[in-house]
Amino acid sequence: MRAKSAIILDLKFARDNLKQTIQTFFPDREIIDLAEPDNAARDLSGIDYAVVWKPDADLFRRAPDLKVLFSGGAGVDHIMSVEGIPDIPIVRFVDRNLTTRMSEWIVLQCLIHLRRVLPYLEQQKKRVWSEFLQPEASEITVGLMGLGVLGLDAAAKLRALGFTVIGWSRTKKEIEGMETFDATGMNDFLSRTDFLVGLLPLTPETTGLYNHDLFGRLRQGGALGKPVFINAGRGKSQNEADLHIALTDGTLGGASVDVFAVEPLPEASPLWGLDNLVITPHAAAPSEPVALFQLMQEQIGRFERGETLQFTVNTAAGY
Amino acid sequence: MRAKSAIILDLKFARDNLKQTIQTFFPDREIIDLAEPDNAARDLSGIDYAVVWKPDADLFRRAPDLKVLFSGGAGVDHIMSVEGIPDIPIVRFVDRNLTTRMSEWIVLQCLIHLRRVLPYLEQQKKRVWSEFLQPEASEITVGLMGLGVLGLDAAAKLRALGFTVIGWSRTKKEIEGMETFDATGMNDFLSRTDFLVGLLPLTPETTGLYNHDLFGRLRQGGALGKPVFINAGRGKSQNEADLHIALTDGTLGGASVDVFAVEPLPEASPLWGLDNLVITPHAAAPSEPVALFQLMQEQIGRFERGETLQFTVNTAAGY
Ligand SMILES: NC(=O)c1ccc[n+]([C@@H]2O[C@H](COP(=O)([O-])OP(=O)(O)OC[C@H]3O[C@@H](n4cnc5c(N)ncnc54)[C@H](OP(=O)(O)O)[C@@H]3O)[C@@H](O)[C@H]2O)c1
Ligand SMILES: NC(=O)c1ccc[n+]([C@@H]2O[C@H](COP(=O)([O-])OP(=O)(O)OC[C@H]3O[C@@H](n4cnc5c(N)ncnc54)[C@H](OP(=O)(O)O)[C@@H]3O)[C@@H](O)[C@H]2O)c1
Repeated sequence: MRAKSAIILDLKFARDNLKQTIQTFFPDREIIDLAEPDNAARDLSGIDYAVVWKPDADLFRRAPDLKVLFSGGAGVDHIMSVEGIPDIPIVRFVDRNLTTRMSEWIVLQCLIHLRRVLPYLEQQKKRVWSEFLQPEASEITVGLMGLGVLGLDAAAKLRALGFTVIGWSRTKKEIEGMETFDATGMNDFLSRTDFLVGLLPLTPETTGLYNHDLFGRLRQGGALGKPVFINAGRGKSQNEADLHIALTDGTLGGASVDVFAVEPLPEASPLWGLDNLVITPHAAAPSEPVALFQLMQEQIGRFERGETLQFTVNTAAGY
Repeated sequence: MRAKSAIILDLKFARDNLKQTIQTFFPDREIIDLAEPDNAARDLSGIDYAVVWKPDADLFRRAPDLKVLFSGGAGVDHIMSVEGIPDIPIVRFVDRNLTTRMSEWIVLQCLIHLRRVLPYLEQQKKRVWSEFLQPEASEITVGLMGLGVLGLDAAAKLRALGFTVIGWSRTKKEIEGMETFDATGMNDFLSRTDFLVGLLPLTPETTGLYNHDLFGRLRQGGALGKPVFINAGRGKSQNEADLHIALTDGTLGGASVDVFAVEPLPEASPLWGLDNLVITPHAAAPSEPVALFQLMQEQIGRFERGETLQFTVNTAAGY
């Protein structure tokens, strides 16, 4: 029996002790951390596994024998956009903790807009006591774009809080108690949506999708008057110049955005200056390294026992 | 058969058309609106029903034949504190809409503190991109004081979002999946609580209950470091000078308060100036007049058919 394959670690997270942490999950495998200068020119042939975040294109030339590639995050656009990806299974990071954190963030942002938190905080600074219009959750239709792992959990929790929820995905879904649309039903879907929640992966189809035209097709005159845009998928799905216009010309009443085309969001971005926008620093649902390495341990175990890998990317669809 | 009794309307809400609205629920009864100057000296003897908010003491002398008294809000402290209340059933306002609005507010405030909304908004103003410690909901124990209509609904929704929830009430409750305490278990309850949520009625026992001593008994060193106080019951249950001290001396990490000893909260209150406190203007769960009048219609129907009234106050307990 050949020795257990090493694992290439190529995560560009700003976190300490990643190597020690992954080593505890794989005590009998070598971990090759590409962040170490000594590994810059190292021969990576014959190695089966790599876990990556924004890999350099030359990784795939340097490690021609990879059998399984692990994504350091739930999204895989950071891999799919690299040239020369080998034709091997790519396993995404899917994790209960990440999913529940995302739903916390989505429910929080929907409640912030429903219950007028930004104007209340503004008037609190002025020591003013006065009630705003704040409709009930059921009067608001949340339109979820993306009904995958994250979208389905968010939908259930939004419904528990009383929101009316409808959903949109590439392939049509049947979900108990919730109306759903596929790509062809987009117009209908948008025209009934008060709060648009984006939980889509970044693919060629979803790049630049959230633009002024789309914002203009959301329901005007719903219970809060104007629609709201909430995005925790990927920043390149939104046109940020259009978002700024829509938030100032009255097309949108408010927004909450966790992801941006360029991260960190540049200090010069005019989005920072808007008082009807909540910005969080790609912090909606952080990847926990321990959970990532645990998932790798399980999936490498399955792979080496000849079982099917889970959470693999559909490379044709791009996510 | 005697004519149907009139109804005395003595609601001090700043809302139009109350009389027209209640009239639609009781087309064949006279509505005597005490806000009309003509009714100031009117003989109110022989009248069976009144719906009140902060009634004047002389109402009960002027209307000696009342058979059922309706509270214009969920709380009845505005009635119980009046001298000379007759020994008749008092029906509280209990309503699905009010309950779900309250749970929206409670879940929102818990998420605001969990996900560090106030510091994120502060740093957003400075165009700073940086992630704060923001533990997962399950790492936070929400201690609910009050497990009545509102407390039970809030508990279920907090648990749906992943929070660990424990509860405290006058009489011990058995609730599936949730640890509960009665008055004798107060110390235990407080020492395990990270977020204290107050949904208690105002009674002699709950007056001034939330004081510096109590804040000091909450768990220090939980997942967020410091405990948080959230109150949507009644303002007179909190000692506001102590709340200010606890929010500045590090006993509490943050707070959200909807109710105050004096409302509107006076402009001079130092609470307005705190940056770790969310203030809302007694707007967590507004009473919808339509729902109130509908409840009166149902209960007067039951009463006149000789059936038991629902939602009656336990006058010995005071709520
Ligand atoms: N902000 C953060 O902290 C954070 C954290 C984690 C993840 N994310 C982002 O969230 C995204 C979603 O994660 P997930 O785990 O829920 O992914 P997932 O399980 O793969 O679900 C993706 C969903 O999007 C739908 N979709 C994809 N392309 C579409 C298109 N062109 N038109 C319509 N629908 C389309 C899919 O439709 P089908 O159901 O028909 O396949 C599916 O419902 C990730 O890709 C990542 O970018 C962000
Ligand atoms: N901010 C707002 O907009 C707003 C809106 C509506 C209501 N409220 C306030 O919320 C309060 C609660 O409403 P609710 O409908 O949930 O009332 P409820 O059904 O009467 O429940 C009251 C709860 O408090 C507990 N309790 C009362 N006195 C206690 C004491 N001395 N020690 C320990 N527990 C005690 C009761 O214990 P038992 O279960 O043992 O009886 C019960 O669990 C109202 O009284 C009102 O003041 C505020």
